[in-house]
Amino acid sequence: MTTNPKNISLPPKSSRERARGLVLELQEEICNGLEALDGEGRFKEESWERPEGGGGKSRVMQEGQIFEQAGVNFSEVHGKELPPSIINQRPEAKGHAWFATGTSMVLHPLNPYHPTVHLNYRYFEAGPVWWFGGGADLTPYYPYLEDARHFHQVHKQACDAISPQLHKVFKPWCDEYFFLKHRQETRGIGGIFYDYQDGSGSLYKGQNPDSNAAAISEKLGPQPQTWEQLFALAKSCGQAFLPAYSPIIEKRRNHKFGERERNFQLYRRGRYVEFNLVWDRGTIFGLQTNGRTESILMSLPPLARWEYGYAAEPNSREALLTELFTKPQDWLTDKSLEGECLPFKAID
Amino acid sequence: MTTNPKNISLPPKSSRERARGLVLELQEEICNGLEALDGEGRFKEESWERPEGGGGKSRVMQEGQIFEQAGVNFSEVHGKELPPSIINQRPEAKGHAWFATGTSMVLHPLNPYHPTVHLNYRYFEAGPVWWFGGGADLTPYYPYLEDARHFHQVHKQACDAISPQLHKVFKPWCDEYFFLKHRQETRGIGGIFYDYQDGSGSLYKGQNPDSNAAAISEKLGPQPQTWEQLFALAKSCGQAFLPAYSPIIEKRRNHKFGERERNFQLYRRGRYVEFNLVWDRGTIFGLQTNGRTESILMSLPPLARWEYGYAAEPNSREALLTELFTKPQDWLTDKSLEGECLPFKAID
Repeated sequence: MTTNPKNISLPPKSSRERARGLVLELQEEICNGLEALDGEGRFKEESWERPEGGGGKSRVMQEGQIFEQAGVNFSEVHGKELPPSIINQRPEAKGHAWFATGTSMVLHPLNPYHPTVHLNYRYFEAGPVWWFGGGADLTPYYPYLEDARHFHQVHKQACDAISPQLHKVFKPWCDEYFFLKHRQETRGIGGIFYDYQDGSGSLYKGQNPDSNAAAISEKLGPQPQTWEQLFALAKSCGQAFLPAYSPIIEKRRNHKFGERERNFQLYRRGRYVEFNLVWDRGTIFGLQTNGRTESILMSLPPLARWEYGYAAEPNSREALLTELFTKPQDWLTDKSLEGECLPFKAID
Repeated sequence: MTTNPKNISLPPKSSRERARGLVLELQEEICNGLEALDGEGRFKEESWERPEGGGGKSRVMQEGQIFEQAGVNFSEVHGKELPPSIINQRPEAKGHAWFATGTSMVLHPLNPYHPTVHLNYRYFEAGPVWWFGGGADLTPYYPYLEDARHFHQVHKQACDAISPQLHKVFKPWCDEYFFLKHRQETRGIGGIFYDYQDGSGSLYKGQNPDSNAAAISEKLGPQPQTWEQLFALAKSCGQAFLPAYSPIIEKRRNHKFGERERNFQLYRRGRYVEFNLVWDRGTIFGLQTNGRTESILMSLPPLARWEYGYAAEPNSREALLTELFTKPQDWLTDKSLEGECLPFKAID
């Protein structure tokens, strides 16, 4: 699944500055949008430096009106050699100094009717190779079909603006990446995910050649992209975040919740912790390579619980989540989902 | 650090039955002791089978008087080939069917003055090789020097009953194993830890040749043990658990706590989650190889929290934990610890 560097176009001269500028702008834009959405909470910023090179700015909102905790990171780091986990995927980077910049975000709302959400857009350069990666995925607790469709629809449009083929691969890739193998569950209802996008060859450059995303990508054949197109993709998807997420918050703003809903949310947040600490390559990579722990673990929820042998009550709204909304679904096209959501008033 | 199987003695004919009997007995004895200690809570047992071979019995107490959650597992599993992570350590096991039996336990008390504790004793056979592993370690929140000393003293005696050299290696090995690299902290005040004990060569058979435990072991030279001695060691240490832990619970039973102590406990429990999901080889091995998820994750606390940028108030009792009690210490011999604990009334 690796590509020949000969097929990779040269990045523009100002590639690093432009990529840094883009992710900084996204961080700024999104934080402003989230403060407006929350109405009360404010982000506090901390700048930090990485001893091995580079640094970042971490912004955190705690105990807002909507957001129990919201973290939006920016970082720009560089080093002498990428770790083996990345070199395995990009052997051409071996022996070369590298540069990476990106923004990442996780929001943990207080109200269980408000979904947790994650976003990350990043850019790498190492010797002869460069690539973009990123995506956004939604993790509802008390789910609504309309919300899932809306989130996917907005991200599909953002991808389609660059090329109508992208979403076909990035949507299933997201389902496959954010998957808890030990629970046989997706983390949430997905969204989009892509990595190692260098404009060459097929779109799928993940680690599972037997996956659904790989098969779709194979069928589509080569999908050449320029650096400019992939830059535009990150911008388009990054800017899609607020329109994809804010309406869901607004719509569910007045949903009352009690102990039952809170308990379920905290239980499901445990799954978020499990995914991030056991399976998320970015988190594990960061922790094992001397990243800034507090910034990396900003993704963890402010409160979470575990309960041995928990099972949702049959036919409950909680069971709807664990049976329907934590399995990969064709949210935008599968009409049968409506029938399944109707009894739980989980459509609109 | 691997050993020549030629140096490994043959196990007795009934080795598997005896090892299974021992860990089952430990599970029974400890559960009975914990029910008596709790006074109200009762263990519920679930039996399970492993599709690939074997099974187990998981016992859980929830919402007891003392224990917010207590889990004590027994398992006896077998398979065709051990996973690469173990084969790397025991190449002689390659290509051979394997057998493993063990008991593991994590207790999460409600009162922050009561420490969390973990225990595990296990036995493996695979072709020409067999080995014992295990240990117990204590994780206090509001710590007491006397409690740390007591826990270590009892485990030292249990090791010394077999050989006076064992504790010299198993104590630092524990500090090194239960270490959160990304936090630069020990999980708690340690105890004992040992693995791959097959009676041959030196005592240390861990993965870090530069460690303190390795250096001490090297200095001690070969420490041959028989199967019977290592069996007796597991029994001695396993039976030491209740006398090591129960007096601490009794002594701190009437300590009142409020929101501040509970918040600190929940925050520190987050570290327990981080260790178990990021660093604990047993947990990761179980989750990645189709173990019984609910039994493996019984070790996670019923409630935990994370807080970006938390720092204990200077000179507080919380700071005593993070500055003194999450660093490796010579609890039994270092007299200077008393002076450091005195201002916090954390001696007795």
